[in-house]
Amino acid sequence: MTQDWFLEKHTPYAGLTLAVRERLHEQQSEFQHIEVLETVEYGRLLLLDGFVMLTARDEFIYHEMIVHTPLLLHGAPKQVLVIGGGDGGSVREVLRHASVEQVTLVEIDPAVIETCRRFFPELAHSLDDPRAQVVHQDGFAYLDGHPDAYDAIIVDSIDPVGEGAKLFTTAFYQKITSALRAGGVAVFQTESPFYNGEVLAQVNRKLNPLFAHVAPFLAHIPTYPSGLWSFTFASNHIDPRQALPEQPPSFQKELKYFNVEVCQAAFALPGYIRETLGEP
Amino acid sequence: MTQDWFLEKHTPYAGLTLAVRERLHEQQSEFQHIEVLETVEYGRLLLLDGFVMLTARDEFIYHEMIVHTPLLLHGAPKQVLVIGGGDGGSVREVLRHASVEQVTLVEIDPAVIETCRRFFPELAHSLDDPRAQVVHQDGFAYLDGHPDAYDAIIVDSIDPVGEGAKLFTTAFYQKITSALRAGGVAVFQTESPFYNGEVLAQVNRKLNPLFAHVAPFLAHIPTYPSGLWSFTFASNHIDPRQALPEQPPSFQKELKYFNVEVCQAAFALPGYIRETLGEP
Repeated sequence: MTQDWFLEKHTPYAGLTLAVRERLHEQQSEFQHIEVLETVEYGRLLLLDGFVMLTARDEFIYHEMIVHTPLLLHGAPKQVLVIGGGDGGSVREVLRHASVEQVTLVEIDPAVIETCRRFFPELAHSLDDPRAQVVHQDGFAYLDGHPDAYDAIIVDSIDPVGEGAKLFTTAFYQKITSALRAGGVAVFQTESPFYNGEVLAQVNRKLNPLFAHVAPFLAHIPTYPSGLWSFTFASNHIDPRQALPEQPPSFQKELKYFNVEVCQAAFALPGYIRETLGEP
Repeated sequence: MTQDWFLEKHTPYAGLTLAVRERLHEQQSEFQHIEVLETVEYGRLLLLDGFVMLTARDEFIYHEMIVHTPLLLHGAPKQVLVIGGGDGGSVREVLRHASVEQVTLVEIDPAVIETCRRFFPELAHSLDDPRAQVVHQDGFAYLDGHPDAYDAIIVDSIDPVGEGAKLFTTAFYQKITSALRAGGVAVFQTESPFYNGEVLAQVNRKLNPLFAHVAPFLAHIPTYPSGLWSFTFASNHIDPRQALPEQPPSFQKELKYFNVEVCQAAFALPGYIRETLGEP
């Protein structure tokens, strides 16, 4: 039997290639091209406009890190907003926190959610939780209507190209500050620091004037470009270098990547990333 | 112009692919097939028996982490042994430590060293240092002749297949304990914890009865399988969880990955790796 191979070029000259058992789904939505492949090594793979969004096997790393890091740093978030993340993985992790009263997912493309309900139920079933609310709107516009509303905002965005570029602007970050309650925290996915350090650096330069505390942190995600991924934490009240949780969360045993030691360690940046950020 | 692409399969169903500008070198030595490719994204690439050993662009990560972690934990190593590592990268990093009087490289294959002198001078020129000594011998046999001789032993081995398998045995680890001086430290490269967690677990099970302190640590290396790599530290005297260096080494500014915060953070293990190791 001939095997098909999927290739994602991470740069014009380097890429990840995965054997594909079956193409399960393909559609052009109003916003993007959506595909689901069944890979041999990583299970189901979600592609948006040809880019790897998640695989069944390693999605836990991204979702545990982007959610538990800011939520544990906050301590007791009640109202949480997720922008993007239509797969439901971030909402699934938010719901582990007993303090959370409501989590709102603002995903512009209903077709992503429909696709994930069908092919990634282990993520998307979180959206059926009574504490979860789904809004199909542009994240940018949504924030305008919700000042002073959230304890934590998780920007689980696509890459800063096309429609995604808006979520990497100063104007967007200003709206985030307005939507946060006192004591609030925000987190942004900020690309591969190895291949796209300039994106990480630009986001940090834009966030620094707006928040008292801005700190990138890292996770290892095998199917993302270079295998190393960055997130950036931002808050006016909480310094992650001071306030790192010491007690494991009650649900830590259910997690496969995140733990309090890894949370703390994730903020330690290798020399080349410090240099990208202009840090000594 | 057609571009050639090199593919390394990390599993039968997943791999890294790199555009190749030119094949610079190819030979069959007494021990292995040696190739050097000029890649577009990562510069020169050394292959042994078809496996990626290093690239010019990201070799600093592996070499800084495998060397500075054990040497700084030791504090003031004078006699250092590197087993394998014929490229000279580990010796280059060892020589940054002013306390080191002599570093001995035991590399079984002279052809690796000759190749690296020609194509990777930025690594192999370290072997010309007056404090460096090169021995062409089997590491296993070499240890028998050198009891109680080293403050630090760095096992910069190939993968545990073929000739490399010997360096992953209890018999080898026993020889390491005999070759270490009081207060000595050892470090072993222990493969990808994502794809080959069982190798890491097996090495740890074999080392645990022989050393008082055994601790894996991690680094992110884009061109290695899964992008995440493990090393295992072992010592009868030094507990890395207690003895982590607080002061940056004098040469920290010359490094591109390692720093004292990263050194400490590298010992924090994600949940799935703890589980592989049978840790709570």
